[in-house]
Amino acid sequence: MIVITSNQIPEEQFRQIVGEIEKEGLQVHVSRGADHTVIGLIGSVNPKLSEHLRQMKGVKNVVKITKSYKLASRDFHPEDTVIDIKGVKIGGGNLVVMGGPCAVESAEQIDEIAKLVKAAGGQVLRGGAFKPRTGPYSFQGIGVEGLIMMAEAGERHGLLTITEVMTPEYVDVCAEYADILQVGTRNMQNFDLLRKLGTCGKPVLLKRGFSSTYDEFLNAAEYILAGGNPNVMLCERGIRTFETYTRNTLDLSAIPALQQLSHLPVISDPSHGTGRRELVEPMSKASVAAGADGLIVEMHTDPDNSMTGDGVQSLFPDQFAELLKDLEKLAPIVGKTFNTTKAPAAEFQRV
Amino acid sequence: MIVITSNQIPEEQFRQIVGEIEKEGLQVHVSRGADHTVIGLIGSVNPKLSEHLRQMKGVKNVVKITKSYKLASRDFHPEDTVIDIKGVKIGGGNLVVMGGPCAVESAEQIDEIAKLVKAAGGQVLRGGAFKPRTGPYSFQGIGVEGLIMMAEAGERHGLLTITEVMTPEYVDVCAEYADILQVGTRNMQNFDLLRKLGTCGKPVLLKRGFSSTYDEFLNAAEYILAGGNPNVMLCERGIRTFETYTRNTLDLSAIPALQQLSHLPVISDPSHGTGRRELVEPMSKASVAAGADGLIVEMHTDPDNSMTGDGVQSLFPDQFAELLKDLEKLAPIVGKTFNTTKAPAAEFQRV
Amino acid sequence: MIVITSNQIPEEQFRQIVGEIEKEGLQVHVSRGADHTVIGLIGSVNPKLSEHLRQMKGVKNVVKITKSYKLASRDFHPEDTVIDIKGVKIGGGNLVVMGGPCAVESAEQIDEIAKLVKAAGGQVLRGGAFKPRTGPYSFQGIGVEGLIMMAEAGERHGLLTITEVMTPEYVDVCAEYADILQVGTRNMQNFDLLRKLGTCGKPVLLKRGFSSTYDEFLNAAEYILAGGNPNVMLCERGIRTFETYTRNTLDLSAIPALQQLSHLPVISDPSHGTGRRELVEPMSKASVAAGADGLIVEMHTDPDNSMTGDGVQSLFPDQFAELLKDLEKLAPIVGKTFNTTKAPAAEFQRV
Amino acid sequence: MIVITSNQIPEEQFRQIVGEIEKEGLQVHVSRGADHTVIGLIGSVNPKLSEHLRQMKGVKNVVKITKSYKLASRDFHPEDTVIDIKGVKIGGGNLVVMGGPCAVESAEQIDEIAKLVKAAGGQVLRGGAFKPRTGPYSFQGIGVEGLIMMAEAGERHGLLTITEVMTPEYVDVCAEYADILQVGTRNMQNFDLLRKLGTCGKPVLLKRGFSSTYDEFLNAAEYILAGGNPNVMLCERGIRTFETYTRNTLDLSAIPALQQLSHLPVISDPSHGTGRRELVEPMSKASVAAGADGLIVEMHTDPDNSMTGDGVQSLFPDQFAELLKDLEKLAPIVGKTFNTTKAPAAEFQRV
Repeated sequence: MIVITSNQIPEEQFRQIVGEIEKEGLQVHVSRGADHTVIGLIGSVNPKLSEHLRQMKGVKNVVKITKSYKLASRDFHPEDTVIDIKGVKIGGGNLVVMGGPCAVESAEQIDEIAKLVKAAGGQVLRGGAFKPRTGPYSFQGIGVEGLIMMAEAGERHGLLTITEVMTPEYVDVCAEYADILQVGTRNMQNFDLLRKLGTCGKPVLLKRGFSSTYDEFLNAAEYILAGGNPNVMLCERGIRTFETYTRNTLDLSAIPALQQLSHLPVISDPSHGTGRRELVEPMSKASVAAGADGLIVEMHTDPDNSMTGDGVQSLFPDQFAELLKDLEKLAPIVGKTFNTTKAPAAEFQRV
Repeated sequence: MIVITSNQIPEEQFRQIVGEIEKEGLQVHVSRGADHTVIGLIGSVNPKLSEHLRQMKGVKNVVKITKSYKLASRDFHPEDTVIDIKGVKIGGGNLVVMGGPCAVESAEQIDEIAKLVKAAGGQVLRGGAFKPRTGPYSFQGIGVEGLIMMAEAGERHGLLTITEVMTPEYVDVCAEYADILQVGTRNMQNFDLLRKLGTCGKPVLLKRGFSSTYDEFLNAAEYILAGGNPNVMLCERGIRTFETYTRNTLDLSAIPALQQLSHLPVISDPSHGTGRRELVEPMSKASVAAGADGLIVEMHTDPDNSMTGDGVQSLFPDQFAELLKDLEKLAPIVGKTFNTTKAPAAEFQRV
Repeated sequence: MIVITSNQIPEEQFRQIVGEIEKEGLQVHVSRGADHTVIGLIGSVNPKLSEHLRQMKGVKNVVKITKSYKLASRDFHPEDTVIDIKGVKIGGGNLVVMGGPCAVESAEQIDEIAKLVKAAGGQVLRGGAFKPRTGPYSFQGIGVEGLIMMAEAGERHGLLTITEVMTPEYVDVCAEYADILQVGTRNMQNFDLLRKLGTCGKPVLLKRGFSSTYDEFLNAAEYILAGGNPNVMLCERGIRTFETYTRNTLDLSAIPALQQLSHLPVISDPSHGTGRRELVEPMSKASVAAGADGLIVEMHTDPDNSMTGDGVQSLFPDQFAELLKDLEKLAPIVGKTFNTTKAPAAEFQRV
Repeated sequence: MIVITSNQIPEEQFRQIVGEIEKEGLQVHVSRGADHTVIGLIGSVNPKLSEHLRQMKGVKNVVKITKSYKLASRDFHPEDTVIDIKGVKIGGGNLVVMGGPCAVESAEQIDEIAKLVKAAGGQVLRGGAFKPRTGPYSFQGIGVEGLIMMAEAGERHGLLTITEVMTPEYVDVCAEYADILQVGTRNMQNFDLLRKLGTCGKPVLLKRGFSSTYDEFLNAAEYILAGGNPNVMLCERGIRTFETYTRNTLDLSAIPALQQLSHLPVISDPSHGTGRRELVEPMSKASVAAGADGLIVEMHTDPDNSMTGDGVQSLFPDQFAELLKDLEKLAPIVGKTFNTTKAPAAEFQRV
């Protein structure tokens, strides 16, 4: 249930309303908009309380919310969430581009790629130190060492960093070295991990499970929000369908749909979403045109020799730079800001 | 198999090459590009012939094609197909917008909508006279009468018309009244209908089956092309997945993927693709950004009272007009031409 | 809506009830059970009529049916439909096995296979004369000639015959030569074909569309029933999912679910449902255990050289015979009758 | 790669073969059958070693295995795995039935249900103490207390127990109280949990991810096996498809397919697989007919008031007992042993 009040009511009146709710043992979540304030109630609400609140001074409306998620819903929090990380804003009218290799392979590799991401106008460096792999005998990432290499490369080139965390016990170390923690598609319903991320103090990018509905996706975000972490980004990365030409089917309708259902920023991953380098550029543009708040794109200086075998979906640095220039033109048409002009120069030649 | 020759070779030499192929009882399909000509061979090719052709004067290369479709493939026909209907060009660098109601309901309805489609800058009027319905007791369209009403409205307002044909026996009458014949998603593998459309003399818009792969889709197009009709448009209209929030999952990766596999124009249908009015605008833009050659969009002056119950996915005329103005800005960024400025004015007020 | 009466009421009273319904321009469908009779009303029912009928003498109950299909539903027709074709009963407590090649290839081939189907205890010979193929250049069946060969083989060996009909214009000739007409999975929503089958005078086996829901499936059956043909069998043949190890995913839950929703017999097709010979035997048994009224199984004397390339899912004759012996033991445990003992002997040696 | 030797070769010769492999730093996995022994090699094999082994005395054959999983594959371990837990054998020719509530609710509830499971002939008591829930505000299970209640009920009535473990940190306590640890469908690729289970010392029932392929499923099992735990059961519990009538689509082809690909026992879960009580009985029988080594079935004495809301898929105790009697007749027909006669009597009346 939500209670809507005008922003004009006296603070005392507002506190009285909140007091009545808390007296019943319910949690309260307050979201202030331009004109009115939404008080979200979490817990099962007695109909008498509902009626009582409706008649209180200052209350404009009382609305029953039937969705199973609360904090993630637009009803509870009508304004866009904007996550500010060291001055980079994610959500609202900003477009953010995260680029980098599937896996951190060496200090040299991640440093060179960081330089190229920055030069192209990207704001965030991506790279995996812990890799979830279908089989136990595949390369599983280089671990904490990789985290450190990436943190250094990010700092050197003025980029934020994002990395995947696979298990609760590694949340702390990942949070120490990375600016954004990523939950992979296979872990979207690893509830223990989600709970731990609710208290980790760092923004989280939550990838949609490869066969999860929007409702399940928002409920997974709710686990993190309910733990006290308001900085969650939703990431569409393709769903599993009958089509085998693409690795997954990038469900771009998810972008506007999730933005209507929720206030959280929505990021698109056209690399995993298609699994084919030649589709990354058109699907990146389509994502932005659909309203995405950001992109996470794989880029590699030598994709054919990447350690994870995911090179086939990685852009070359020149393609990545070209794409970001195009996005700069596209962004304003859909009301977003994206700027590559201040990026430093960098050289790259395909072998 | 395809045989590639330079465009500079003497006509006599070219005819000799083709003669050698036809002598073996194979069909020949010739596609002339800017610099070289592709001769496609249909039928099973003797390895000896392949070797013989490779050594003939004027032959630059002989390439084995392993795809089951031939005429639909980019290999056989490297240049984009551009379909010219009464001066409206579909394919290549043009963007075409088809708008209109799910079903033709009356002469007045279709006339008013035609006027609004034209005023917004659309080039094609859509409307169903024969409706495929899941159950036998639902409204099945008003039939031939509807075709005539739509043809008149199209002519009056200077629009091409497109309508669905459901069965071989109605191909002729639909071809008489409409400029483009549409094959619905349930009929994508109605091979008898496809064969009939191969000889109908009108361009065909073929919708992807709601659970068909790209390969099956292009093979269905091949049925029409093999019948002698080169004017086929492919239409992505959403696939069936586990997600139920949207009516279908609009698979926008299909747009660039099909354009890479084939030379045929690719149209997107965000109305059926999402089944939700509020998603049509962002997904229309995303379709164009992904490279679509056109859109087919439902628009209705009174969607809540439409006869098919599909109003929930129809835009209001003002939304439609707004969308087309946005597309005018978006199109050049992805290398397309779309112009609404010459459209005549028209008034519409939502009740 | 349905009206339920006791079977004990005088005929005059019953006619009066029916008369009141027909006066309102509604169609009536009467289904007599052991104790009571169900009168199904097709058309939109005035609430006044509903109330009036409820108060008439002899009426036990009036129930609103919200499903979009009527004649196909168990509500309208509570007793199992049993289709009797030349003494072979399909539905109720009987198990029927249909066996044969994917395609009729020659008179000798179909005759030899017919002999082996009969010897194993099968009651129906399957074989395709018209084959729906993804691409236009694949073998499309040998046509009417094949129908005649199969009819002769069936008659010679005392088997019913079933064959696929792909288009309305071939319904008559197929109905002339075959005992059961089959609608393929790609044609489940070829409404024109369904309507034509509604008046063809022969029983129809309707295959589920490879991505159709139970509801759509029963609505497709409704098209045939509404045309006046009560003899429809539903066939589960596997749906399209993400799993690629099997050709399709045989959805056995469809068997009991459809039997609960409908009175029509349900047949299972483990050959197309799995696409793998080694899975046909266990899935045939599973189908019967789930309550299937029959099986349609591909069997070929030389599967590796079949003309359609579907041999990989065809049983060898000895495997087919072995399976039917096992089904004979299994059938009574789930309340079905199946008997192989009266079958004539036949020899077969794998090469 | 695998090396096959006769069982007749001298021990010394066998040790020499193994020695040559270990010298190259590879792991060895030995599986002894009736006539020959299979030595599985884990790690990347030098072609020279392969050739060398082929020529060694006592080696009958050397076969390259291309599957990504090794220990889980039938190639590595040709004989059925039979897991013996306190005398109850799972795998091979045995049928095992696991029954009980979705969640342990109280000591009385689990005790009464245990009595009824035992009386019906079941061998294992199921019940959840930790429940994975889509949203954070749903009932999450009663925790360790529930484990203890279930362990006591199991012991009192002579039943093994199985319970779900959701996170690595709870593996030890679950292993202390339960005989079998279950991995839920959402955790099939929680690799950290799988690794921990590889060393837990208890048999594990691994549920298939609701959109996982057979290959991914067997690779997930490989994580557990590679950790040193050979006692893994695979559980098919339904996959996510477009069909919404059933909660999931129970993919029974998975049973014979997995048994052909792997030596591990395969269990079927018709309760989650269908989500509908009325489909549990036919799908249980179908599972056994398809060759399942066991069933896990929800049963509740008061399903309409279960704490998880999953009651709609739970059998009443009388239905459960009836089903097991039917399975007793069905089992021998597919070569399985199942016996309800020694079960003690118990009374139950539906309210």
